[in-house]
Amino acid sequence: MEGIIIINYKTYKEATGENALRLAKICEEVSKETGAKIIVCPQHADIYRITSQVRIDVYAQHVDNISYGSNTGFVLAEAVKEAGAIGSLVNHSEHRLRLADIDAIVEKLKKLNMVSVVCTNNVSVTKAAATLEPDFVAIEPPELIGSGIPVSKAKPEIVQSSVKVVEEINPKVKVLCGAGISSGEDVKRALELGTHGVLLASGVVKAKNPKEVLLDLISGLG
Amino acid sequence: MEGIIIINYKTYKEATGENALRLAKICEEVSKETGAKIIVCPQHADIYRITSQVRIDVYAQHVDNISYGSNTGFVLAEAVKEAGAIGSLVNHSEHRLRLADIDAIVEKLKKLNMVSVVCTNNVSVTKAAATLEPDFVAIEPPELIGSGIPVSKAKPEIVQSSVKVVEEINPKVKVLCGAGISSGEDVKRALELGTHGVLLASGVVKAKNPKEVLLDLISGLG
Amino acid sequence: MEGIIIINYKTYKEATGENALRLAKICEEVSKETGAKIIVCPQHADIYRITSQVRIDVYAQHVDNISYGSNTGFVLAEAVKEAGAIGSLVNHSEHRLRLADIDAIVEKLKKLNMVSVVCTNNVSVTKAAATLEPDFVAIEPPELIGSGIPVSKAKPEIVQSSVKVVEEINPKVKVLCGAGISSGEDVKRALELGTHGVLLASGVVKAKNPKEVLLDLISGLG
Amino acid sequence: MEGIIIINYKTYKEATGENALRLAKICEEVSKETGAKIIVCPQHADIYRITSQVRIDVYAQHVDNISYGSNTGFVLAEAVKEAGAIGSLVNHSEHRLRLADIDAIVEKLKKLNMVSVVCTNNVSVTKAAATLEPDFVAIEPPELIGSGIPVSKAKPEIVQSSVKVVEEINPKVKVLCGAGISSGEDVKRALELGTHGVLLASGVVKAKNPKEVLLDLISGLG
Repeated sequence: MEGIIIINYKTYKEATGENALRLAKICEEVSKETGAKIIVCPQHADIYRITSQVRIDVYAQHVDNISYGSNTGFVLAEAVKEAGAIGSLVNHSEHRLRLADIDAIVEKLKKLNMVSVVCTNNVSVTKAAATLEPDFVAIEPPELIGSGIPVSKAKPEIVQSSVKVVEEINPKVKVLCGAGISSGEDVKRALELGTHGVLLASGVVKAKNPKEVLLDLISGLG
Repeated sequence: MEGIIIINYKTYKEATGENALRLAKICEEVSKETGAKIIVCPQHADIYRITSQVRIDVYAQHVDNISYGSNTGFVLAEAVKEAGAIGSLVNHSEHRLRLADIDAIVEKLKKLNMVSVVCTNNVSVTKAAATLEPDFVAIEPPELIGSGIPVSKAKPEIVQSSVKVVEEINPKVKVLCGAGISSGEDVKRALELGTHGVLLASGVVKAKNPKEVLLDLISGLG
Repeated sequence: MEGIIIINYKTYKEATGENALRLAKICEEVSKETGAKIIVCPQHADIYRITSQVRIDVYAQHVDNISYGSNTGFVLAEAVKEAGAIGSLVNHSEHRLRLADIDAIVEKLKKLNMVSVVCTNNVSVTKAAATLEPDFVAIEPPELIGSGIPVSKAKPEIVQSSVKVVEEINPKVKVLCGAGISSGEDVKRALELGTHGVLLASGVVKAKNPKEVLLDLISGLG
Repeated sequence: MEGIIIINYKTYKEATGENALRLAKICEEVSKETGAKIIVCPQHADIYRITSQVRIDVYAQHVDNISYGSNTGFVLAEAVKEAGAIGSLVNHSEHRLRLADIDAIVEKLKKLNMVSVVCTNNVSVTKAAATLEPDFVAIEPPELIGSGIPVSKAKPEIVQSSVKVVEEINPKVKVLCGAGISSGEDVKRALELGTHGVLLASGVVKAKNPKEVLLDLISGLG
């Protein structure tokens, strides 16, 4: 079982503060039971709360292209690392970044030994992102995010083309896909299309029974 | 002794992660010894680390104009509140905001019973900010920030005019001043000009002996 | 007849390039026939095309807070002035600006003897904007923009309160209202609520017969 | 003589309004005399003034990722095209754009048969930009812009590596270089490094005798 499941907490109420911690504990439990690799992306204010109490991989939702210094209110990669995060989403569809900043952030995360997951919206942007050599590129067609329609079913050709262009540019970069993922069936299909896992949010965070959904998702990892 | 001292940690190395905690403990200690009101503004990733271990008032450096939902990587006021912050800087000179967002954020902080400190760059912006009825307006001429030249000495007329226009608009709004503050003498002068305290950063954060600097600053509170 | 009618061309196809010129000529014609004051706000690329061929007041849709120098791709007030514009919208709902920038832009327009129209979204922002002493504040509740539901009917209390707070802050600042305005009836109501005119876009730009709509609007000026 | 010279007017006073026109006429004159290809990039408000009076290729300094519609104050590619521009700079160092927007803008310019010149800051961003298949990528190390130190001398390895990675990604994309270019010697060196021309600004715009500088630059085209 090699695929990964990244859960983006966004700023959902169900994944803020104490709820963020509770959901992380569920993920930890499921991960232990199944051996599956689950990563959670809480808000910056919740990273330390989770990492100080739960054994689960945590990525930040975003970091800014800044260094130690005078950057009031911005997000320093070094700070989220010290809070316990071991990676970060970059350029999420809800937080698009400038090309020069993506480049600098990916490089910085590398220097900090942190995992970078650059989100993209189509095949040409996926290709551009792959040249920057992040650990992962996560293709998420914006029109399907939160739609409940899985990208792996609705637009398999985008996922496949993404896998193909990334392989041409740099085979070390792994592809994830997201948008509309909610079941083990969706995950299975995503892996069949050549990805190394999925990125999802509401499917787990807003589920009545997140554990059940997680177990179903993991069944798709094969 | 009614004035307050707000310490903005920015993204200084000396105030990130474990250093953020250490500095908060020094502030707590000094506050206990002197009875002075000291507030610290750490990075979002460090708020919980501090509030779960130190008894000191914590404000966020920034919150975004967003609600619970799909806002990956942005800063939710509810999240920083649940992490233990009781207020937030708004519109810091390193993080200027749109007028409509300042309006919405101040209103939101009020609903959450959180303290709002709107930073401004000159007298006319101070006046505009005061109409939005935040708890504090903090006037900081950008050219003096980090200069070591105290605004209370270099531009007393800006501080005085700020106090005057705020009083005309809404006497309930309190005025702070910042930029170049580093000694008790500066604090004393700031209070004499009609402010309720000071906002500073490097003066304390980058001091060799922060406790000494804090004690000196507090001596100016009278 | 003292009220004014400002027509925002936005980036509508019907008001781009040659279409921008054609619409300006219709406005000029109607203005001559009726004596009414009509102002058009074309895209920056269309200002000179209009001002070099039509006698009509032209405002820019936006200017940036910049000076002569190295600001590739940004909008210099001096440049739009030299192209023939005599004023500018500031902080339109589709182009919200930072408070410090609105302050600087209003001041700059004043120095250049250009008219400033600061757009606002609610009463508290209107009040804040009025402190900056622009020539006009234009209140446009965002939820009504392009709705076809006139603000003067749907939310008369917002318009009235805006007029009131502006008068308290600075009686020299004039109030306009916008959002959903499309008929002389709407204009009449807007003036009755204490405004000095209206700001509209699609109502004229996308009309089958703009001249007819303009004549109707002007009938409301009394 | 195949190389091109692109002159970015920025928002320089010497290249605003009537000055913009005057400089365009000089470029036209030099271009006629020498047969060299010179392109000027004036402010949006000055495009029509130039194209309606001078026969010279004009590119915009920037266009936004928008379509016909409700985008007050933003720059529509269709509008600058109708004003007479036949291309646009994209992602200039003074106007960095989001990756997804660069992708969409390059595609849009293609559909409009307009030339796209994507500016980049280093080799890895150059590579990423090349995957988007613009007509040109212009490498400009930010630290040299306006420095008077020509990139072709100070950092020839960056120019050469840029040429190399672009060739690998897509040999149809041509490379330009900029930053510190001011003489025919600099241009010659740039072409020797494999570029198709140069992008410059102050070197011509702020010259006492722009014609003289242009003739010198062109001497470097060989």
